[in-house]
Amino acid sequence: MTRPISFLSDFGLRDEFVGVVHGVLATLAPDSRVIDITHGVDRGNLRGGALTLTRAVQYLPEDGIVLAVVDPGVGTSRRALAAETGRGFFIGPDNGLLSPAVAMVGGAHRIHSIENPDARISSPGDTFAGRDIFAPAAALLATGEMELADLGPEVDPDTVSPMLLPFPEVKDGKLHGEVWWVDGFGNAQTNLDPEALIEVGCSVGDRLTVRTGATERNLLWVTTYADVEPGAPLIHVDSSGLLAIAIREGDVAHEWGLSLGRTVVTGKADQ
Amino acid sequence: MTRPISFLSDFGLRDEFVGVVHGVLATLAPDSRVIDITHGVDRGNLRGGALTLTRAVQYLPEDGIVLAVVDPGVGTSRRALAAETGRGFFIGPDNGLLSPAVAMVGGAHRIHSIENPDARISSPGDTFAGRDIFAPAAALLATGEMELADLGPEVDPDTVSPMLLPFPEVKDGKLHGEVWWVDGFGNAQTNLDPEALIEVGCSVGDRLTVRTGATERNLLWVTTYADVEPGAPLIHVDSSGLLAIAIREGDVAHEWGLSLGRTVVTGKADQ
Amino acid sequence: MTRPISFLSDFGLRDEFVGVVHGVLATLAPDSRVIDITHGVDRGNLRGGALTLTRAVQYLPEDGIVLAVVDPGVGTSRRALAAETGRGFFIGPDNGLLSPAVAMVGGAHRIHSIENPDARISSPGDTFAGRDIFAPAAALLATGEMELADLGPEVDPDTVSPMLLPFPEVKDGKLHGEVWWVDGFGNAQTNLDPEALIEVGCSVGDRLTVRTGATERNLLWVTTYADVEPGAPLIHVDSSGLLAIAIREGDVAHEWGLSLGRTVVTGKADQ
Repeated sequence: MTRPISFLSDFGLRDEFVGVVHGVLATLAPDSRVIDITHGVDRGNLRGGALTLTRAVQYLPEDGIVLAVVDPGVGTSRRALAAETGRGFFIGPDNGLLSPAVAMVGGAHRIHSIENPDARISSPGDTFAGRDIFAPAAALLATGEMELADLGPEVDPDTVSPMLLPFPEVKDGKLHGEVWWVDGFGNAQTNLDPEALIEVGCSVGDRLTVRTGATERNLLWVTTYADVEPGAPLIHVDSSGLLAIAIREGDVAHEWGLSLGRTVVTGKADQ
Repeated sequence: MTRPISFLSDFGLRDEFVGVVHGVLATLAPDSRVIDITHGVDRGNLRGGALTLTRAVQYLPEDGIVLAVVDPGVGTSRRALAAETGRGFFIGPDNGLLSPAVAMVGGAHRIHSIENPDARISSPGDTFAGRDIFAPAAALLATGEMELADLGPEVDPDTVSPMLLPFPEVKDGKLHGEVWWVDGFGNAQTNLDPEALIEVGCSVGDRLTVRTGATERNLLWVTTYADVEPGAPLIHVDSSGLLAIAIREGDVAHEWGLSLGRTVVTGKADQ
Repeated sequence: MTRPISFLSDFGLRDEFVGVVHGVLATLAPDSRVIDITHGVDRGNLRGGALTLTRAVQYLPEDGIVLAVVDPGVGTSRRALAAETGRGFFIGPDNGLLSPAVAMVGGAHRIHSIENPDARISSPGDTFAGRDIFAPAAALLATGEMELADLGPEVDPDTVSPMLLPFPEVKDGKLHGEVWWVDGFGNAQTNLDPEALIEVGCSVGDRLTVRTGATERNLLWVTTYADVEPGAPLIHVDSSGLLAIAIREGDVAHEWGLSLGRTVVTGKADQ
């Protein structure tokens, strides 16, 4: 059996970086299907990459390999990790990038550090870790040519870098969170869970007060875009299961000036 | 037999939307090849998406599945359609996106509405139709696990949304049309057919008058770019078979300020 | 055996050009894997495309097909070439694009001009060479349906367009070269070889003087980014084996105003 490989990075598509990794995968695992999750993660944005992977992971082939490279610490001594989970293997740098997605699929059974020189491609100069370390490890696991333990020594899970994510809080009966993702349509996903909103006394159909930065507005918690008029704002549970602010057929991030990390405070509007 | 799936959308490549659809396809149809037609259709531009698909369709594998998602009405009650044609299946929203391409391959034999809950992925929140409805339907048809009729009830073709496209007219011996596509090289394709230009008395090699907006210029109707000097404008039959305005080794859309929908009036120049 | 096809172009991903070529390849070579090297080469930039291909080629599957299309002379009489090398076939326009990569893999054994009408797709208008000539030739070689000699007559290698690349020079004990590539992270690769720097008396760990344009700075020749502080500039041998200027966790091209062709003069700094 050859496992499929799902590949995420911040390499962009202008240069040949993604193509070269595909070349290495095609050479070492010619029968593995490769799925490009995205290569449009903002350069070096570990949290953005980790959240993107977490949103995608449940839709990727089970028992495949996830290969994720956002690596601002390239060239330092951060380790290269390969983790076995109940949903296939995860390969990437030890910088927190993989942690939320691995947690979402139930955590790692075993984590190894990729150190075996036979699992690497030697470089004419600086190591390009995606090409020289991560891609070969992914391909060798995909074909079964190597097992996890062949890649290098086992690692104590307590030494693996976590990804510290801001969690929402309840203060004065309001839910306090932040914008976690602005997608290409301009929708603003928050880190707020609909369950938490219900706990502060709100229900679908309610008029909510939403403060972003210093501006407070009232808007409806609806089920779907079509519950408001085109051009009207709304709050809803998006397709990842989190509360998101949107404008029907509009770009709320642009119109309201929302960007990553912007404070969002919400609760029931006064009657 | 597993059918290949050709996928077009306006999702862009910055987010994981395209990757998640690929993940669903790889999970449900692991042996289907997936061809990305493009994901760069302007957000919500139904006509642009429909024309892109129409230009591409004859070059896609026959007997495959076309999966097309440009869906500004997401969250409304517009139907999700699957159509059988003489050239494979077409899957997408009932908003006109598929209509010109389906017409180009000879029309639909049967059209069904995708409603079977067993053909869907359930979402943690809002439906992401590309991921939850369209991709599973494409994959299930590709593998043969479902037939068209399994997806949902047959639909009266007269109730399916058409795509209203502007057709050229002849007035005062001139051909009146518009710019239909500006490609990334800056070439401006019109909706004018070379046959229509011949009917108003023009032939290849003629000097034509071309009015775009308020500006009138004379330029040569040539067979190929090399028939004019670098930097010179030309009109020619482009690789889709329609009349296009270009500048050899230049960007006519930028230099002349041409954009989608700009009026183009052409005919034989005065001697 | 069906060969994999590695595809590079300047088509971009906004239009359907790349998708249509994939459609032709999937139709004619349904079992060939296709690797997208990149489609982000600057429009018509032959040197940029040639260097990108040269950096990538050793990581692509051996015995595959390289299909490369950057073709500002489309529509002129430049030939369409197919070359056999010790590392598979190379297909593209006769404009120098393929030359450095073919040289890097040891040169061409035989070069043929693609002229056989049976190896072409006929177009409704102008020829789209990527779709109508190059992709079919790649697919027919990939499946073995045609051999090189079936594509058209053999070509005298001395008549094939070279790619003239600037080579570094030594003057007054300094190495004179130029910026050859700015990647998406803003790193500036030069055309300077580390061996040449050693020949002018420098070693790893030395403080070098680097003049770019009119500005001279001192910086360290290091092995890896982590040898300097975040925000500090460095010179190192990059993952392609050439000297590159970078700023750790920064964008040197932006900060120093470096772009393609900018002069770089380097040597040992005064003690």
